[in-house]
Amino acid sequence: MISYTEAHKKVIETAMDFGETQVHIMDSIGCVLAEDILADRDFPPFNRSTKDGIAVNSKYIKENDSLKIEGICAAGDPQKELKDFANCLEIMTGAVLPDNCDAVIMYEEVDIENGKARISSSPIPGQNIHKKGSDQQKDEVLLKKGEPISSQNIGVLATVGKERISVKKLPKVAIISTGNELVPIDKVPEIHQIRTSNSYSLQALLRQLNIESELMHIPDEKDILEKRILTALKNFDVLVLSGGVSKGKYDYLPEIFEKLSVQKKFHRVAQQPGKPFWFGMHRDYETHIFAFPGNPVSTYVNFHIYFNDWLDACMSASSKNYEIRMNDEVENSTDLTKFLLVSANHEKAVLTGNLVNGNGSGDLVSLSKASGVIKVEPQSAFKTGSAFSYVPFR
Amino acid sequence: MISYTEAHKKVIETAMDFGETQVHIMDSIGCVLAEDILADRDFPPFNRSTKDGIAVNSKYIKENDSLKIEGICAAGDPQKELKDFANCLEIMTGAVLPDNCDAVIMYEEVDIENGKARISSSPIPGQNIHKKGSDQQKDEVLLKKGEPISSQNIGVLATVGKERISVKKLPKVAIISTGNELVPIDKVPEIHQIRTSNSYSLQALLRQLNIESELMHIPDEKDILEKRILTALKNFDVLVLSGGVSKGKYDYLPEIFEKLSVQKKFHRVAQQPGKPFWFGMHRDYETHIFAFPGNPVSTYVNFHIYFNDWLDACMSASSKNYEIRMNDEVENSTDLTKFLLVSANHEKAVLTGNLVNGNGSGDLVSLSKASGVIKVEPQSAFKTGSAFSYVPFR
Repeated sequence: MISYTEAHKKVIETAMDFGETQVHIMDSIGCVLAEDILADRDFPPFNRSTKDGIAVNSKYIKENDSLKIEGICAAGDPQKELKDFANCLEIMTGAVLPDNCDAVIMYEEVDIENGKARISSSPIPGQNIHKKGSDQQKDEVLLKKGEPISSQNIGVLATVGKERISVKKLPKVAIISTGNELVPIDKVPEIHQIRTSNSYSLQALLRQLNIESELMHIPDEKDILEKRILTALKNFDVLVLSGGVSKGKYDYLPEIFEKLSVQKKFHRVAQQPGKPFWFGMHRDYETHIFAFPGNPVSTYVNFHIYFNDWLDACMSASSKNYEIRMNDEVENSTDLTKFLLVSANHEKAVLTGNLVNGNGSGDLVSLSKASGVIKVEPQSAFKTGSAFSYVPFR
Repeated sequence: MISYTEAHKKVIETAMDFGETQVHIMDSIGCVLAEDILADRDFPPFNRSTKDGIAVNSKYIKENDSLKIEGICAAGDPQKELKDFANCLEIMTGAVLPDNCDAVIMYEEVDIENGKARISSSPIPGQNIHKKGSDQQKDEVLLKKGEPISSQNIGVLATVGKERISVKKLPKVAIISTGNELVPIDKVPEIHQIRTSNSYSLQALLRQLNIESELMHIPDEKDILEKRILTALKNFDVLVLSGGVSKGKYDYLPEIFEKLSVQKKFHRVAQQPGKPFWFGMHRDYETHIFAFPGNPVSTYVNFHIYFNDWLDACMSASSKNYEIRMNDEVENSTDLTKFLLVSANHEKAVLTGNLVNGNGSGDLVSLSKASGVIKVEPQSAFKTGSAFSYVPFR
């Protein structure tokens, strides 16, 4: 049995690039850019008025002058020209500064009457003008390849006309449940049966990572398992399984993986929850197998402490590390690395947490109350107020 | 011009319930429950073995006994019965404890040979059994009406067979851009034009709130604006607009809203960015109008400081309040409440931030570098390390 640290390392080592794909801008949030996004022109693309008012040539006018209005420049109009330098043009926010002008005086500082604008003070050259190229110059890199796309980036992508964007391809994932006690969600279980739940949790978690996945259930029968897992190995980049990896008589998966030439990276980790976790990779198909134990809390927590980091590594994104200060004493008298459910709060600017006391790894309701897990090293004890490495649930 | 606090209050006051709807479990994350979720049976529904091993009757056996194995209980099998109390049944994790048994001894503590299991110690009654109803009892409330559904809840919903779930209905939103300078994202703009970007940012933000929205662009022509806004008023719960509310000659929206009997709640707020923000509600259609200024940063920030909280209020969900400690000196010498772009970090367990210095409200690239805004009251100055109210971007 290997330690959590070793297991985590072995998982991360298998991270690979799944190539690139094109997505529509509206489907791009959360994806990782596979191209640099360049300014296709200067920003702003022209000297742009930032106020509603009049455009003038500051060199030819002075305080108390009354300027004849030659016309009006609206946003969206092609550039106009001030004919007589002692005159002015009305101008709207977002409009192109007219030729022969170098300043904008806002309406609040002007009296307009009978087609003339009286100004109360001399303008400063450049005032109320957002200068061409002052934000960004053409061909400057606005967003870098490798950056994850956030909602803040969407405006940039739209502005430079990227309707379709090259992003890193996400792995194709199948979620496989095993266990003859499981019935589908829409069936009423017999007394000795329970409904499938892990597959839905996993699918929800994957969807939050932008990964659409396929659900399948395979009964605990060797022949069927072997046949269907072989098909899945050929058709997916990742198989996420729950159940079938413990020491039970019908826990056939490790044996079947071996038969199908999946290279075992490890089986069983000195951790709680999720000790029976099996992880491997098929040499030819390069399919990754995350075979989590069947208990709901084990599956859910293991997904967060292994799969998320692995995916970040595949995307060459850095995993975020959080710390949390616990309002409880925390103890781990076992030889296992423990991941304890906590409910986190923001108290002032500090992230604090309380232990969620549950009934063990089958207890979905405790999981529901938790917002993440803290990592507690074997044989350790901590006073109230101690800081822990924290993995938030998504 | 009213203060930010007054404006925010007026927006929240218009919050309303949009009713209920049913969604599929896989589309339910982020939705707010409109029903209590009850346990449809005890959890676990039977006395469940938590280990692979043998099931025994502790009263009839003792250390070093060799117990004849009567058979095997797999997960998913109906309950079996131990015939002779001095015998045992093999049992797998997740299986129903057989009748006449009260303990499970795990394989690691048993020697099996020739159909017999020799035990090395006397079992304690109840050991390795997850007792029926010990997590939850039938009809207990597992998730409360009004709770937002997280990925942690999906397993609970699946377990009790909720394939379709009653959730609070979200408003139907139209995103309307105005401004003749705007061209669609797939067009190459003329020198005096720019591409639409706010609509895409807003649509992305709404999608993150589970709200699908419709995009429309209306040119700055009074008749067309009036006609199309009237149609939108009738067909949507919310119109989110950007642009057309400043003091420019072609900023027709306030006038048109009035003509269409939209009740103005306020126009212009003592805030930066987003001073020209116009907010109102149509009395008959109950349509809410968030008319944000056209500058990209104004629109994006105003959406976060008004719309998000308003939606939370509509869903009767409590808005989260965050604080952040700034690594910079912060000053606001204006009479406006300022929302400054910051980039946040987790340093140990503390949320800290740095100012993102930008080029004003048109600067999308600065927005791209920010993770949220801090609120800075008018006429105030703060030393490095001061704490601020923080609104993270989603």
